[in-house]
Amino acid sequence: MTGGESLLRTLVAGGIDTCFMNPGTSEMHFVAALERVPGLRGVLCLYEGVCSGAADGYARASGRPAATLLHLGPGLANGLSNFHNARKARSPVVSIVGEHATAHLKVEAPLTSDIQAFARTVSRHVRTVTSADDVGPAAAETIAAAWGPPGEVAMLIVPANFSWSDTLVPGAPAPRQFPRLPARDALEGAARLLRVPGTAILLGGQSVNARGLDAAGRISAATGTRIFIARNVAKIAAGRACFTAPQVPYFPEAAIPFLAEIKNLILVESERPVSFFAYPGTPSYMTADDTSHFTLAARGEDGVTALEILAYGLPGATLPQVQIPQAPLGDVALTLDHIGLTLAALLPENALISDEMVSSAGKVLAHLRTAAFHEFMPVAGGSIGQGLPLATGAAIACPDRKVIALEGDGSGMYTLQSLWTMAREKLDIITVIFANRRYRILDIEMQRTGARGFGPQAENMLDIGNPDLDWAGISQGLGVPATRATTARQFTEQFQDAMKRAGPHLIEALLV
Amino acid sequence: MTGGESLLRTLVAGGIDTCFMNPGTSEMHFVAALERVPGLRGVLCLYEGVCSGAADGYARASGRPAATLLHLGPGLANGLSNFHNARKARSPVVSIVGEHATAHLKVEAPLTSDIQAFARTVSRHVRTVTSADDVGPAAAETIAAAWGPPGEVAMLIVPANFSWSDTLVPGAPAPRQFPRLPARDALEGAARLLRVPGTAILLGGQSVNARGLDAAGRISAATGTRIFIARNVAKIAAGRACFTAPQVPYFPEAAIPFLAEIKNLILVESERPVSFFAYPGTPSYMTADDTSHFTLAARGEDGVTALEILAYGLPGATLPQVQIPQAPLGDVALTLDHIGLTLAALLPENALISDEMVSSAGKVLAHLRTAAFHEFMPVAGGSIGQGLPLATGAAIACPDRKVIALEGDGSGMYTLQSLWTMAREKLDIITVIFANRRYRILDIEMQRTGARGFGPQAENMLDIGNPDLDWAGISQGLGVPATRATTARQFTEQFQDAMKRAGPHLIEALLV
Repeated sequence: MTGGESLLRTLVAGGIDTCFMNPGTSEMHFVAALERVPGLRGVLCLYEGVCSGAADGYARASGRPAATLLHLGPGLANGLSNFHNARKARSPVVSIVGEHATAHLKVEAPLTSDIQAFARTVSRHVRTVTSADDVGPAAAETIAAAWGPPGEVAMLIVPANFSWSDTLVPGAPAPRQFPRLPARDALEGAARLLRVPGTAILLGGQSVNARGLDAAGRISAATGTRIFIARNVAKIAAGRACFTAPQVPYFPEAAIPFLAEIKNLILVESERPVSFFAYPGTPSYMTADDTSHFTLAARGEDGVTALEILAYGLPGATLPQVQIPQAPLGDVALTLDHIGLTLAALLPENALISDEMVSSAGKVLAHLRTAAFHEFMPVAGGSIGQGLPLATGAAIACPDRKVIALEGDGSGMYTLQSLWTMAREKLDIITVIFANRRYRILDIEMQRTGARGFGPQAENMLDIGNPDLDWAGISQGLGVPATRATTARQFTEQFQDAMKRAGPHLIEALLV
Repeated sequence: MTGGESLLRTLVAGGIDTCFMNPGTSEMHFVAALERVPGLRGVLCLYEGVCSGAADGYARASGRPAATLLHLGPGLANGLSNFHNARKARSPVVSIVGEHATAHLKVEAPLTSDIQAFARTVSRHVRTVTSADDVGPAAAETIAAAWGPPGEVAMLIVPANFSWSDTLVPGAPAPRQFPRLPARDALEGAARLLRVPGTAILLGGQSVNARGLDAAGRISAATGTRIFIARNVAKIAAGRACFTAPQVPYFPEAAIPFLAEIKNLILVESERPVSFFAYPGTPSYMTADDTSHFTLAARGEDGVTALEILAYGLPGATLPQVQIPQAPLGDVALTLDHIGLTLAALLPENALISDEMVSSAGKVLAHLRTAAFHEFMPVAGGSIGQGLPLATGAAIACPDRKVIALEGDGSGMYTLQSLWTMAREKLDIITVIFANRRYRILDIEMQRTGARGFGPQAENMLDIGNPDLDWAGISQGLGVPATRATTARQFTEQFQDAMKRAGPHLIEALLV
């Protein structure tokens, strides 16, 4: 077999069943081997940022790594910002990057670049294959590194000559390592702190899944401990049937008073909260300087079981009674509240939501608390262009679940090529574009930074409504059926219609 | 003034009049200062790869650097692949990247990343500002580094607190350094070699402009020396009124016999030719091992004047008589030859062509030799997604010249957001999309690599026609009027119509 085939066989042996790819010349032997090795689904993406974001979505939705296949340094460069997001979400990803044949590296070919340098910007595991016989073992190592725990974007760089040469050596993937329970000291220390007034728990990592939140809810009900959710999480269990806790607010002027009273903060797969950005005169840490921080479970440890141990024997938390909302049907101009109500009323059980609403998030999220059980995948790394690829990967990982992409019109433009892959793979995704035709978050940030002299020149740099983006037209051009809603009734009816069918649909929700 | 304002003032003092930007929170003080500092045109792009490619196009078209403004490490990451192309084209670019406030870097904020590491992948000049007073001097240094010669993508990283703090220090840009003439030994050595049979000249860098080609043509006419053009050049003077020389062929099996007879190769702002990719059993260098290589002008030296010195007193080369072609008007299925003929017949004097035709290039280029004088900007670095941004920047640099973007349907998808900026800025660009609905170049490469077992699974990874991209619809959705041509007559008529108007137009040339 070729090295390329050995790579594929190792991936399949290691449980990798999907590869999001945008291949080039150096990867042709890998692509050709798809024919001979069953078990790996190649998913073509028309831009590398779609590949990396889809792998992140696949990992968040399923808990398992997918592979990506990118072409040389520049191909990897195009995928880096969504790998950055995947890194911050601790998503396991097996990232394969083709390299020139080793003999070709001595010459300055047009596409020659320092791939290791590109890779190290988002990964601690960067492994370059050294021979055809090394392809399999190196791939097995990379799979293990991706799994962690915690999950990682693990990089495997494969020179073309090792991919095209023959080898008899397949890789033998190691057994998966599972998260370990924290040490007894951590469990006992947290148990003591739960008896002290002014203690709160900050949930991150896996601990915001349904089991972790249930345990945290029982602890809170029994002890009065406040529970918070960190901002940089991969996927939160949510909806009316689920104990919920507030996320630490985005802006520091809200987050600081919110966390001010905490004497002891128990960290579960999370870190001391920091603000997204710095502002003149604002601290970076959001908890007070005299708050003490106690780690119950570090990253990669089993925070869920740790919470369950602390909650052992405690009765279930009483969830607040919520009224199931009605989808609005008024012939009135569409608002964020309408969208939130429609989603809350019509969301099917066990949906996956990919969130990149940015400035539109607050109002919509308030309504989603009353929706059926769902899992919510927020912005983890803050690099724009995550939402549509994430939905793409999640839908491939979970074909039996409805996926909803809630996407800003500015952020959606970064990786709009995702829509084509949704169409090609007939993915069951409803995309809602929040078309306010502004970089609205920057309007807010511009005022908050205290920048003087905001006028038409600067204003023009935040205005994406000149000319208007016709999202419905763009979507149809990329193969995804689309409609535009300007009233509450239109949005509800379009969402209902889309929900009746499997396959992708886009609703441009016009908010101006 | 703020540091942000000092930065702007330094840019304007250094002759920078355009900034392609996609700003974020950390860059708001720079954006706000646009209001107070006249002379810098902010051009908003909806994706960073458009910013970096547009700056490359601006530099290639005008010979002068533009600035880019990108947001933190991930924003820079999205721009890297077109910066890679700019680097290979030796285009001067002043790349400004916002960074978190320095005090905020000690915490692991979501968007924290190693910006220097991202920057060093494409630049030797990476300068991080160290205080508000350092903003201006650091910007002046960066402008000087961008100019070179040779031109460079020079990086300036600006922490937000130095941008928002006050300073009294503006930057004082140094006088521009011009390329120097090569040493006398180089000129005399080359003159001697021109008298030896089997000598050829390989033109690169600036030496493929109209003056350089004219001098090379006179040398060739007088001495019989063969002239070639390197592949990795930024902009080639071309058309029927211009001495022309063949580019070194792309594929090694063509390039190797093409260059086989050369005993001495005189390099003018170029290097020994190498193949784009390596293939089993094929050398990386395209000239024979016994060819000797002599550098007349190194990168950054004045190869044009060096050629003029060698051509001193020689009469002008006789250009071949070419018949000015007729634009085809048949009601027959559109072919590449039809497109080439139409372009050759209708191209206005002094047009700029941005080429990313990829597999479609050969046939079209053969016809362009008979067109009016134009300048042709080819793929320099090989990273896909160059063409549309390059045209965008070129049109902003040269509003009085028609710009033609010749773009593959696969490569065009990488940075299609460019179309919105063309619409917003009303740029005089005709974009032709070569819609063959395949990654056609990979069909060719797949066969050439000798990869076995090419079948439906692999085939599916090269097919971008399922679903079909509706390029005309996408273009209209992004604000650029568009038409689709399926016959020779339609293409000619649509091109004629577009040529009559200023402003952007896209023609989807359907080739299947």
